Amino acid sequence: MYGKCNHPPDSSSCNRLGFLQKNNSLEERSRIVSSFKERTAKNLLSCDNSGGEARFRRTETDFSNLFARDLLPAKNGEEQTMQFLLEVVEILTNYIRKTFDRSTKVLDFHHPHQLLEGMEGFNLELSDQPESLEQILVDCRDTLKYGVRTGHPRFFNQLSTGLDIVGLAGEWLTSTANTNMFTYEIAPVFVLMEQLTLKKMREIIGWPDREGDGIFSPGGAISNMYSVMIARYKFFPEVKTKGMAAAPRLVLFTSEHSHYSIKKASAALGFGTENLILLNTDERGRVIPADLEAKVIEAKQKGYVPMFVNATAGTTVYGAFDPINEIADICEKYNIWLHVDGAWGGGLLMSRKHRHKLNGVERANSVTWNPHKMMGVPLQCSAILVRERGLLQGCNSMCAGYLFQPDKQYDVTYDTGDKAIQCGRHVDIFKFWLMWKAKGTVGFEQHIDKCLDLSAYLYNKIKNREGFEMVFNGEPQHTNVCFWYIPLSLRGVPDGEGRRERLHKVAPKIKAMMMESGTTMVGYQPQGDKVNFFRMVISNPAATRSDIDFLIEEIERLGHDL
Amino acid sequence: MYGKCNHPPDSSSCNRLGFLQKNNSLEERSRIVSSFKERTAKNLLSCDNSGGEARFRRTETDFSNLFARDLLPAKNGEEQTMQFLLEVVEILTNYIRKTFDRSTKVLDFHHPHQLLEGMEGFNLELSDQPESLEQILVDCRDTLKYGVRTGHPRFFNQLSTGLDIVGLAGEWLTSTANTNMFTYEIAPVFVLMEQLTLKKMREIIGWPDREGDGIFSPGGAISNMYSVMIARYKFFPEVKTKGMAAAPRLVLFTSEHSHYSIKKASAALGFGTENLILLNTDERGRVIPADLEAKVIEAKQKGYVPMFVNATAGTTVYGAFDPINEIADICEKYNIWLHVDGAWGGGLLMSRKHRHKLNGVERANSVTWNPHKMMGVPLQCSAILVRERGLLQGCNSMCAGYLFQPDKQYDVTYDTGDKAIQCGRHVDIFKFWLMWKAKGTVGFEQHIDKCLDLSAYLYNKIKNREGFEMVFNGEPQHTNVCFWYIPLSLRGVPDGEGRRERLHKVAPKIKAMMMESGTTMVGYQPQGDKVNFFRMVISNPAATRSDIDFLIEEIERLGHDL
Repeated sequence: MYGKCNHPPDSSSCNRLGFLQKNNSLEERSRIVSSFKERTAKNLLSCDNSGGEARFRRTETDFSNLFARDLLPAKNGEEQTMQFLLEVVEILTNYIRKTFDRSTKVLDFHHPHQLLEGMEGFNLELSDQPESLEQILVDCRDTLKYGVRTGHPRFFNQLSTGLDIVGLAGEWLTSTANTNMFTYEIAPVFVLMEQLTLKKMREIIGWPDREGDGIFSPGGAISNMYSVMIARYKFFPEVKTKGMAAAPRLVLFTSEHSHYSIKKASAALGFGTENLILLNTDERGRVIPADLEAKVIEAKQKGYVPMFVNATAGTTVYGAFDPINEIADICEKYNIWLHVDGAWGGGLLMSRKHRHKLNGVERANSVTWNPHKMMGVPLQCSAILVRERGLLQGCNSMCAGYLFQPDKQYDVTYDTGDKAIQCGRHVDIFKFWLMWKAKGTVGFEQHIDKCLDLSAYLYNKIKNREGFEMVFNGEPQHTNVCFWYIPLSLRGVPDGEGRRERLHKVAPKIKAMMMESGTTMVGYQPQGDKVNFFRMVISNPAATRSDIDFLIEEIERLGHDL
Repeated sequence: MYGKCNHPPDSSSCNRLGFLQKNNSLEERSRIVSSFKERTAKNLLSCDNSGGEARFRRTETDFSNLFARDLLPAKNGEEQTMQFLLEVVEILTNYIRKTFDRSTKVLDFHHPHQLLEGMEGFNLELSDQPESLEQILVDCRDTLKYGVRTGHPRFFNQLSTGLDIVGLAGEWLTSTANTNMFTYEIAPVFVLMEQLTLKKMREIIGWPDREGDGIFSPGGAISNMYSVMIARYKFFPEVKTKGMAAAPRLVLFTSEHSHYSIKKASAALGFGTENLILLNTDERGRVIPADLEAKVIEAKQKGYVPMFVNATAGTTVYGAFDPINEIADICEKYNIWLHVDGAWGGGLLMSRKHRHKLNGVERANSVTWNPHKMMGVPLQCSAILVRERGLLQGCNSMCAGYLFQPDKQYDVTYDTGDKAIQCGRHVDIFKFWLMWKAKGTVGFEQHIDKCLDLSAYLYNKIKNREGFEMVFNGEPQHTNVCFWYIPLSLRGVPDGEGRRERLHKVAPKIKAMMMESGTTMVGYQPQGDKVNFFRMVISNPAATRSDIDFLIEEIERLGHDL
């Protein structure tokens, strides 16, 4: 009967002893010895009823009678705390295991009203009275159950995909340390890690050693906003005190394919979106430098002051790389700040094979680079890098005495808070630093090369395949592969408004069916005059050629008869 | 000999079986059975050398030969992945245990140059080649070793202190889910949790049901920046497209004691810091409403347009609450946006005993409220709440087609991304939602009441104590207790420049010694014409009266003979 209770040992988790030898001889050594058992409800109940001695005896830890108030710092709360956290870890490791298992669905889709009504007892409403830790653990399970497995090998929906285990460990540690980046005082190690990592990134960009500055910010949109702010401070520092009234009419330039955050920054910072001039692109989505120069001249003729150009390294939809060198020539000629938005494409700087796509990036005044996208770092991790030291601080410093006391006992130039538009700042650096240590620069390079290889595989597979039509010709510059799927009923139908209208509805329909069946996820959108098409992107380290094959076949399966 | 290897069972962790009964009968039940052993290096080595059968056999998991590339998604990587994560959890749970142990130091202070030189092999530099997982685990230990234990019962240095176990579990889950708040599509559960939690917060503020809006942002400074942006959009929506040139000269008002983020927002958004008018306060740091009205009238006479007033609920240093009702009267009279910065004091809304300090908050147009401060939620968790629905969206929306497709199969009004100045947005809601479930509204209330009781205890203990001098008279409104410690050599010295100069140096000296000895941490700063004083704040759920006593005695011990 006890045999029924104990499943055959799971090779992945039973009776394993992880052993760690520490360099530092004064440091405690420790072991972790853990065994996990998963049982079905039935087996567990038969276990409960047995009353005899099982291999792993059930103790009195019954979470139904425990509450948050029983955990640390409660007196004698240590045992319950450890048991509770281990139970959570059990839930998380099971989730992780399943995430990488292709027989698991990517998601279990429900409409908002369904989840709000409470799925099988999953109640999202908050209440006045505490709930037991048992219920909290159930809530944790349910939260994961009804979520989306962004690390699943067949999740291709965003630029940020995958679940890096070392990065995840870094995040767990970060949240356990629960501190704030604004001063060295309370984040000494993280502040130094940030400094060293930013320096390394600047070196990779190609700026001279020991120069420059930067900060990790809450995402690429904020990093891009920083670039506009810093540029304004460089050319019109009096705007900081006197406002936009102190400057002439300033204009900014970015391509029509660029990320909408440049537009958001124009609105937020007081430039106005009308003073953001959109540049024409070629059929691949790359800025046409002659169009930039023409528009700069036109703006100057109107008496406006061209202040800022954004060149995108890896556009969101097409994955296009603007020609940075040619844009830099124009920026230098007209004394305009050059920002490179490499949120998506910056990662290619780590690849000797692909970094040429960002040639000229070392001529930029500032660069956005999101390790949480192409480098697989968990969300979020975005850097704004600035060539000239002092601007970030000058632009944002307000010298708050209660936080940045000049009379501390350590070198307060390490305090980073006054460079930021934030006050408190989340620790985004540790997971990235830890991944870099664990993979090495070469590890990132391999990941990036592999993703680009996979996208080339996809491109070559579908470019002449029946039912597929490419949005633009030629091998993609990044991992973005943009295509229409043409259902049987539309093949051979001549181009025209009718066909366009019908084609526009195909991708949303297929996507909806994908989500309902939970098999895979990929994005779609219109772009300019082009009706809805799929945008496949590959940043997921778990993806293989078989997953690409699966995606193609799944689109065909779902869309063939539309 | 094996007896030596195995320490007596640690009651907190040995042979415990956590049992969870799930409401949903279809859900798998699971058990976690874990045992931990910590051994000293010596014991471990003797164990290694024994060669016999120990209770928990050491397996082949030797991390010195494993690398990140051996973890999932690597083929057959599951076992190593689980072992690695469990080893990390062992490090973290040991850290958590020690965090709550008063015999552990708050920090082990080192100067930046010491850490950069490499403490006992802790090398912060990044390298081209990967390092073994053994080294990665050592790096994790070292990172925690040289950090600051912000959850330690004697850490009082910031407004955000403590380590809530349920919140921590929430963060671990959040990072495992590794998703993004911008669409319901990839964060269905989190998006709904955010919506319901914001609604609850608006109800607690006192706004009519079903109205209003809000979003979680990366910290109070950004939340405050939102408030200024939204106010501008409400009164001068054309600034979004035409820039600040489309508006008259706009002025903003905030107190000289308010948080510097209002000033940062004025600079960033193009108002200019000179157009932020500082209001006089009484001796307790509260805005004098008559001064606001006089300055509004003065600005109007100059032809400027008063647009925005910030009232602080809980100032950073004094913990003062501006009189919201009187300020609201003036704002209504002159048609000015009223923002309440309750980043620090907003938590008091959860307490029936203390919420009267925010009387009038329901008249505000927007409110900043940081659960990561007074409510003990792990960093970071800050909400900007807006009374009028539609403004957030109107102000920030750019309708990016690649992200916010209108033709999705679900109700896309649940997509939150176009309300934000960010594009991707970190999941800050889950830990807060989970804590609310676990503690209930009453749990937050108890925490807040307890912290305010403790600060009253501190105040009463030192207000007449020899060697202590209060910065302002009367019981603190929040948990901020501001005081000077007067060393023996300064007692009886008449007030004057000389005494002031010497007193200014006392707090920094004591603080430096505190950090060197690692016993406790508390902040200090000057304010206006007042020289450096200590600002004690209590938000740490682990703190007790004995810790307050300890702090007082520690200050006396370190400062007595200065």
